Amino acid sequence: MDRRIDPWGSEGVKDYDRLVKDFGIEPIQGMVKKVPDNLLFRRGAVFGHQDFGRIADSIKQKKDYVMLTGLMPSGKFHIGHKMLAEQMIYYQQNRGKVFICVADVEAYNMRKASLKDLRATAIEEYLTNYIALGLKPKGCDFYFQSSRSGDAGKANAYHRLAAMASRKTTTNEMKAIYGEVTPGKIMSVMHQVADILHPQLKEFGGERPVVVPVGVDQSPHIRFCRGIASRFTKSSEYDFIPPSATYHKFMKGLKGGKMSSSDPYSFIALTDSPKVAGEKIMKHAFSGGQGSVKEHRKKGGNPDIDVAYQMLYFGFEENDRKIKKIHDDYRSGKLLTGELKQILIEKMSKFLVSHQQKMEKARGKVGDFLG
Amino acid sequence: MDRRIDPWGSEGVKDYDRLVKDFGIEPIQGMVKKVPDNLLFRRGAVFGHQDFGRIADSIKQKKDYVMLTGLMPSGKFHIGHKMLAEQMIYYQQNRGKVFICVADVEAYNMRKASLKDLRATAIEEYLTNYIALGLKPKGCDFYFQSSRSGDAGKANAYHRLAAMASRKTTTNEMKAIYGEVTPGKIMSVMHQVADILHPQLKEFGGERPVVVPVGVDQSPHIRFCRGIASRFTKSSEYDFIPPSATYHKFMKGLKGGKMSSSDPYSFIALTDSPKVAGEKIMKHAFSGGQGSVKEHRKKGGNPDIDVAYQMLYFGFEENDRKIKKIHDDYRSGKLLTGELKQILIEKMSKFLVSHQQKMEKARGKVGDFLG
Repeated sequence: MDRRIDPWGSEGVKDYDRLVKDFGIEPIQGMVKKVPDNLLFRRGAVFGHQDFGRIADSIKQKKDYVMLTGLMPSGKFHIGHKMLAEQMIYYQQNRGKVFICVADVEAYNMRKASLKDLRATAIEEYLTNYIALGLKPKGCDFYFQSSRSGDAGKANAYHRLAAMASRKTTTNEMKAIYGEVTPGKIMSVMHQVADILHPQLKEFGGERPVVVPVGVDQSPHIRFCRGIASRFTKSSEYDFIPPSATYHKFMKGLKGGKMSSSDPYSFIALTDSPKVAGEKIMKHAFSGGQGSVKEHRKKGGNPDIDVAYQMLYFGFEENDRKIKKIHDDYRSGKLLTGELKQILIEKMSKFLVSHQQKMEKARGKVGDFLG
Repeated sequence: MDRRIDPWGSEGVKDYDRLVKDFGIEPIQGMVKKVPDNLLFRRGAVFGHQDFGRIADSIKQKKDYVMLTGLMPSGKFHIGHKMLAEQMIYYQQNRGKVFICVADVEAYNMRKASLKDLRATAIEEYLTNYIALGLKPKGCDFYFQSSRSGDAGKANAYHRLAAMASRKTTTNEMKAIYGEVTPGKIMSVMHQVADILHPQLKEFGGERPVVVPVGVDQSPHIRFCRGIASRFTKSSEYDFIPPSATYHKFMKGLKGGKMSSSDPYSFIALTDSPKVAGEKIMKHAFSGGQGSVKEHRKKGGNPDIDVAYQMLYFGFEENDRKIKKIHDDYRSGKLLTGELKQILIEKMSKFLVSHQQKMEKARGKVGDFLG
């Protein structure tokens, strides 16, 4: 049986429960009340985890822990990216150290981009938006794989780990996880392993719990990385606590499929004007409503497949009572598709205006994050 | 046809001329008079080259150039290693910058050694002997792959080059050169590429000729590295002058085969006492003499296969007139095997006594080479 997961062709994952069962990912429900309140956990955008108990304990006991995430700089920063940024900021507000890795080696090797362009996109699109969304420089280590910040000792410790990790795997193991492997891919994967494990090196703060929030397509990589961590620990070369992970759903694209950088009508960028965003929602957002008002009033809409509803549910309507009312009214047919979209458009416009003002200020703060 | 060269099983290379012809290596003869006098060139221990004209010109015109060599720390430093050390020192005395790379990532990945042990062997065996043989700290960059010396900018520039090189090759190209490839092997090879090319990065002195003295078994790697250099240059990511190489013969082991770390009677270590060295030569050195004195006087000996003669020829008898007399006398039968060995033993003893005194002093100078 092929144990690889690559379900993001165009359909998305339909059956999260099966993935939880087949891949040893535990449901998040048991954790929701153990950590400070958090919309994405509460509403199941984050639906599963591995060893998250260690992180919940660290938060509760005010102990040192790390959240690490990576970004592959490409295209516009959109509301899908925002959902991950909100997780970073949640951990930072709850005393976690935040490591943000710009996977420029991976992007260079796998997407044939230039390091210079990648660097510009990472800073101008991603970092600036993170800052506007609330990321603070204190306790944040924003770095590029190709130029690890800090002194030479730190840079070398990071790269040495990437090099040593290659002894802890085989071509067969990598093929089982990644399919056909090339030298560029192997180099990229070894950097990813170093990214996830290096916050536990003494040069970067030492042994401590690390959580990596990922989409479920990254589950094999987390398993691979946990395996390498345990092989190092067994050989006494390093002591690593196996990294924890949380698994999140992806926000659907406007048209119901994936958000795609190459199709601006599949997403709302955080730099879209409220007018453009409104038009995208009104004209393009996939609806769970019926073909006519009459039919909608009679049969009701389906919020589960309605993209405007999903966007409200996963962040734009924070009030649980209000979102339930929207859900029920749409389901019953009381709320029409146009009305539902209008609710999102108002929330979205308000957010975009405010966010774009913050972006102006954020540009001046970028330097605080770059060593 | 299999274009790989791996002729070091137990036989050694018998036909250097064929290798020169098949692998585009040019004979060194044309270069001997273009550079300051040098026993190893003059006597053909260094027998071939690629693009060495650039180095000869740099020496003549007093322009900046680099000699880079790598070492895989293992076992005792012996008279085979001495021959390469003499090349380093020759270039340093002729105004070349000397980069010495301790291939600890490669040794870790391919030989399963610990980085700590590798480091100790590299310093205590190799570096200390280099110093005793005449290596100076000025203009010498002695470094470990796993911890590139200098600041973070330098460390990153080196590792970034290793990572980027992986995009410039394919699994097929690597298999053609290295046979079966593993993640550890790929990582090692990418570090080797960075070793050879990084002296031309702006962080390390910028574009300039680099010569790598290697055994002929390394010829495919030089070709691979020159290919990657030209692909980078074509893409305008880096400007590299294709690295030059010289090719040297290996000094035969005492028994006529290879010098092997696992068999102390196959080599003379530079830490062997004169007594031990003398016994090794007298009892174990493979002889080109005849079975009896009578037969030897009649038929003469064969210096070409006589290990004691080879050792005199490739360094222990520097005087061309004297070595010719030894050769002719041995060939004619005038000089007996025991007498020939005695000449080497005397030269060797004198060298070892003097060298071991220098080693004592050299230990105190190690720090000057370690950033």
